[in-house]
Amino acid sequence: MSEEIKKAAIIGGGVIGGGWAARLVLNGIDVNVFDPSEEAEQNLVEMLSNAQKAYSKLTMAPLLKPGKMQFVNTIEAAVQGIMFIQESVPENPDLKRNVLEEIDNYASKQALICSSTSGIKPSQLQVGMKNPQRFMVGHPFNPVYLLPLVEICGGEKTSMESKQRAAEFYHEIGMKPLILRKEIDAFIADRLQEAVWREGLWLIRDDVATTEELDDAIRFGFGLRWAQMGLFETYRMAGGKAGMRHFISQFGPTLSWPWTRLMDVPELNQELIDKIVEQSDKQSGKNSIRDLERIRDENLVAIMQGLKLQDWGAGAVLKDYEEHLYTKAHSGVFKSEPDFSEPLRLYESVVPPDWLDYNGHMNESRYLQVFGDASDAMLHFIGMDEEYRSQDFSFYTVETHIRHLNEVGGSEPLMVETQLLGFDEKRIRINHVMIHPPSGKMLATGEHMFLHVNTEKGRAVQMGKAIYEKLEKIWKGHQNLTIPEYSGKGIMQLKTHGNENAT
Amino acid sequence: MSEEIKKAAIIGGGVIGGGWAARLVLNGIDVNVFDPSEEAEQNLVEMLSNAQKAYSKLTMAPLLKPGKMQFVNTIEAAVQGIMFIQESVPENPDLKRNVLEEIDNYASKQALICSSTSGIKPSQLQVGMKNPQRFMVGHPFNPVYLLPLVEICGGEKTSMESKQRAAEFYHEIGMKPLILRKEIDAFIADRLQEAVWREGLWLIRDDVATTEELDDAIRFGFGLRWAQMGLFETYRMAGGKAGMRHFISQFGPTLSWPWTRLMDVPELNQELIDKIVEQSDKQSGKNSIRDLERIRDENLVAIMQGLKLQDWGAGAVLKDYEEHLYTKAHSGVFKSEPDFSEPLRLYESVVPPDWLDYNGHMNESRYLQVFGDASDAMLHFIGMDEEYRSQDFSFYTVETHIRHLNEVGGSEPLMVETQLLGFDEKRIRINHVMIHPPSGKMLATGEHMFLHVNTEKGRAVQMGKAIYEKLEKIWKGHQNLTIPEYSGKGIMQLKTHGNENAT
Repeated sequence: MSEEIKKAAIIGGGVIGGGWAARLVLNGIDVNVFDPSEEAEQNLVEMLSNAQKAYSKLTMAPLLKPGKMQFVNTIEAAVQGIMFIQESVPENPDLKRNVLEEIDNYASKQALICSSTSGIKPSQLQVGMKNPQRFMVGHPFNPVYLLPLVEICGGEKTSMESKQRAAEFYHEIGMKPLILRKEIDAFIADRLQEAVWREGLWLIRDDVATTEELDDAIRFGFGLRWAQMGLFETYRMAGGKAGMRHFISQFGPTLSWPWTRLMDVPELNQELIDKIVEQSDKQSGKNSIRDLERIRDENLVAIMQGLKLQDWGAGAVLKDYEEHLYTKAHSGVFKSEPDFSEPLRLYESVVPPDWLDYNGHMNESRYLQVFGDASDAMLHFIGMDEEYRSQDFSFYTVETHIRHLNEVGGSEPLMVETQLLGFDEKRIRINHVMIHPPSGKMLATGEHMFLHVNTEKGRAVQMGKAIYEKLEKIWKGHQNLTIPEYSGKGIMQLKTHGNENAT
Repeated sequence: MSEEIKKAAIIGGGVIGGGWAARLVLNGIDVNVFDPSEEAEQNLVEMLSNAQKAYSKLTMAPLLKPGKMQFVNTIEAAVQGIMFIQESVPENPDLKRNVLEEIDNYASKQALICSSTSGIKPSQLQVGMKNPQRFMVGHPFNPVYLLPLVEICGGEKTSMESKQRAAEFYHEIGMKPLILRKEIDAFIADRLQEAVWREGLWLIRDDVATTEELDDAIRFGFGLRWAQMGLFETYRMAGGKAGMRHFISQFGPTLSWPWTRLMDVPELNQELIDKIVEQSDKQSGKNSIRDLERIRDENLVAIMQGLKLQDWGAGAVLKDYEEHLYTKAHSGVFKSEPDFSEPLRLYESVVPPDWLDYNGHMNESRYLQVFGDASDAMLHFIGMDEEYRSQDFSFYTVETHIRHLNEVGGSEPLMVETQLLGFDEKRIRINHVMIHPPSGKMLATGEHMFLHVNTEKGRAVQMGKAIYEKLEKIWKGHQNLTIPEYSGKGIMQLKTHGNENAT
C-alpha cells in the first residue's frame, strides 16, 4: 500500500452514496457525509444497519473497528483535509459538474475525487476543474457494500498515477477494481446491462414477457452462469472441446438473424412505463424495498460464500479480503514487538445485533465464534498464514472448555486476552479470557487444545520450525504468568442426581 | 402428475443432447440416444460422469436409481414406443426440419417432441409434420443437468395441452419451465444474451475491453445480482423506496444517450474472430474445457446450495425438487414416543455450505451452534417453552466442554444424541454426542451445565415443578446408561512446555 486513507468524504447519500458510506465505515474508515436532503441521514443509518447484518454473515474474519460517520452541512466542510472523496449525486450532468467543481475547489490538490456516475464520460465532468488529473469515474454496483466490482474510467486529463492510487484504495476495502482501457460512455458493465434493458423493454412492450418472466429467464438460467464466469468463458464451453472458434462458427450467423429488435430504440412512453410499474408491483410488491434488500443481501452473501469455497470469482475476492483483514488486525494491534510478559491481545470486536438470542444477550455459540476468531488470530500471529496452509498444514481444535460468566448485549465491545498454557511439537494449549472493556467484566473463559495436522493425509504431524520457535519466544514470558485455577478442570458432577464417573 | 415417463429418446448427443441425457438418466429415466458422430458416445459418458459428480454434491436427497443409456443406430429405433423425445442436433434449420420430420414419422402420435433450438421459431420447424400439435421448443441452458430453466415455446400448430404436459415432465426432472406467451425468434433468454453478445463484440472490436475484462465486468458486479433476482427486481431496489417508477424516471433518459452501439451490427470478420479466440485462449486456455466444466459445475452447485438455504430462485427450485425426491422415495421417518432407556434423539440437521471454514469443514463455532440447538430442543422437550420463558425463567449455559473428533463437510447430515448426566433443583448436566448418520462416525461430544435463572432478577432460582418431574422421568432410564469416560474431565496438560496447575 502506497498510502493509508483513514478518512473519506461522501458527497450525496442516496442508495449509492449510502452504500459507499457503509462500505467505508465497515472498513474502519471515518466518513464525512454531505447530502442536503432530509431523508439522507435516516437512509444512511438504515443502509449501515443492512451492511452490518450482511458483513456479520459474510465473514468470520475479524472486522476492523468501524469508522465514524459524521454529517456536515457544506461540501467545503466535507472535503477539507480529506484524501479520498466519492461523489454520488443524481445522474444529471450539470448538477454533477457543479458539485465536482466545488469539491475540486475545496479539496487538497492531492486528494482523489471519484464520481459514481453510471455513464457520463469523465472528460465531460472534469472540464472546469483546477486539478483534473486526480479526478476519475469510480463506478460501483448496488449494493455497494457487498458487490466487488468498481469500474475506474479516467478522462482526457486524468493521470494514470491517480487511477492506480484509486485502484489500490478500492482493493483495500474489498473491491475488484477494473481500470478501463478507453474512455467510453456508460463504461463496460452498464453498456451490457443497457443492452438487456433495451431488449427487455421491447419484449414487455410487445407483450412477449412480463418483468417477472424476464427475471425468471435470467435467474434460473444464464444468470447463474454469469455470476461466476461471465459470458465469454461460458460460451467457450458451449463450443465443446473445439472451444471458442467452434462456438463462433455455430452462433456467429445469428447476428444476421432476426434475434433482436435492438436496431431500434423502444419509445419509453407513459403507457410502457405504467405497464412496467404494474408488472413489477405484481412481481415484487409483496416485499417492501427493505425486505427485498435484505433478501438480496442474504442471497449475495450465500453466493459469495459458496464461491469462496471454490476460490473463484467474487469468492476469490472475498477470500483475499479476509486474508487482508487478518493481516491488518494483527499489524494494527502490534505497532512494536508485543510484550510477552503479558497475555496476548490479538482480538477486538463489537457484538453485532444479529448475534443476540431471545434474551437479548449474545447467543451461546457466538462465544465460541469469538474464541474461534481469537484462536485464528493467535495462530495467524505465530505464523499459520495462507501460505503455510497452502502446504496442507493446519491446526485443528480438538478440545474446548468454555465457562460462561456474564452476558453481553448488542453493539458492546469485546476483547480477548490469550495465554499460552503449554505446547509440544504437535499441540498447543491456550486459555482465552473474553473481556468487556468498558466494565472490565470477564464474560467467559475458553481453554483450547490445538493439534497440528497434515490436512491432506488427515493426521497429526510436527509443526513447522518457525511456528515452534515463535511459541518458544512467547513461552519465555508466558511461563511466568499465573495459571488460572480453572484450567485443566472438568465440569463438576451434581450430588442429587448424578452418578460417579465409572473410571 | 398426469403421466409417468420412464423412457425417453435423445436425438443429437453433443453438449446439449448429452446434458439432457445426463439429467434424464440421473432422474431414473432410461434413454435411447441417436447420434451418428463418432465422438458422441465418449462425450455422453464424460457428460454423465460430470453430472454424477455434480449431483452427489448438489443434494443429499435420495436420488432415484439411474436410468439406462442405450445407443441406437437410427432415429426410428430411438423413438419407437417412446413418449418423450428431445431433439438437439446442430443449429441448422434445414437439418432440424429433416430430423424432426423423421422423428414425427416414427414416433407415437401421443409422444411429445421437443427441440432444443436456441432460436428458430417452432412454426418454421413443424411445417412438414403429420402431428405438429405435440411439437414445441423446449430450450435448455448448458449445463442442462444443472441449470433449471427450460423455455417452452409452441408454434402455430402446437396445442396448449402438449405444452402443459411438457412443462409437467420438465418440472418432474427438477427444472423450471417457462411457457412463452408468444412465439418469437430466439425466445426470451437468448434475446437477452444476444444483446450482451452484440454489445460485447463491439467493445472487443473497438479495443475497449478484452473477453476477460468483459467477463469480469459481469461476474464481479451485476452477474451476482442476476443469479438471484434478474434485472427488473434488482432495478426496483435501485429506485429506493420510490421503486420502479423512480428508477425509470432516473434511467429512462439513457435510452436517448449514446450508451450503446446496438443500432448497428458488428461485422464478424476473420480479424474479429481471431481477436476473440486469442483473448479467450489467454483468459481461459490454462484450463481445459473439462476443467472449466468441473469448475463451473462446482460453482453452480455452491450457488444453488447457498440459494437453497435462502429458499430463493434456483435454490427454491432445488428445495422443491428435493422434497419431491423424498416423497418419491417414500421416506417417512416418524418420531416414535421417546424411549428413556436410550439417549434422547431430538435434533437432526444438515450442514449448510456457509458453515464451512477455509479447510472446507464445518467451522469450529458451528459445533457449539449445533449443540446449542440440541440443548434448546432438549430444554423445550422438558418443558421450557415460550410460555415458561414469559414468566422470566430460563436456563443459561454456564459451562461447556467440547471434544472435536472428526470433520464434516457441507450438506452432510447431522444427528445429536443427548444423555442426562445429572440434575438438581437449579442445575442440569448433560452430554451430547454429534453423529454423522451415513458413516456412523462420532463427530464431537459436548458436555454442558445449565443453570436455571430468574432472568428479571438475574440470579439462580429453583426450576418449575413440571420440568423437575420430567427430568426425574428421564433419569429413571438415563441413570442406567454408561457414563462416558471423558465426562467430568478437563483438558490435559502438556509435558514439554506446560506448568502444573497451581491449585
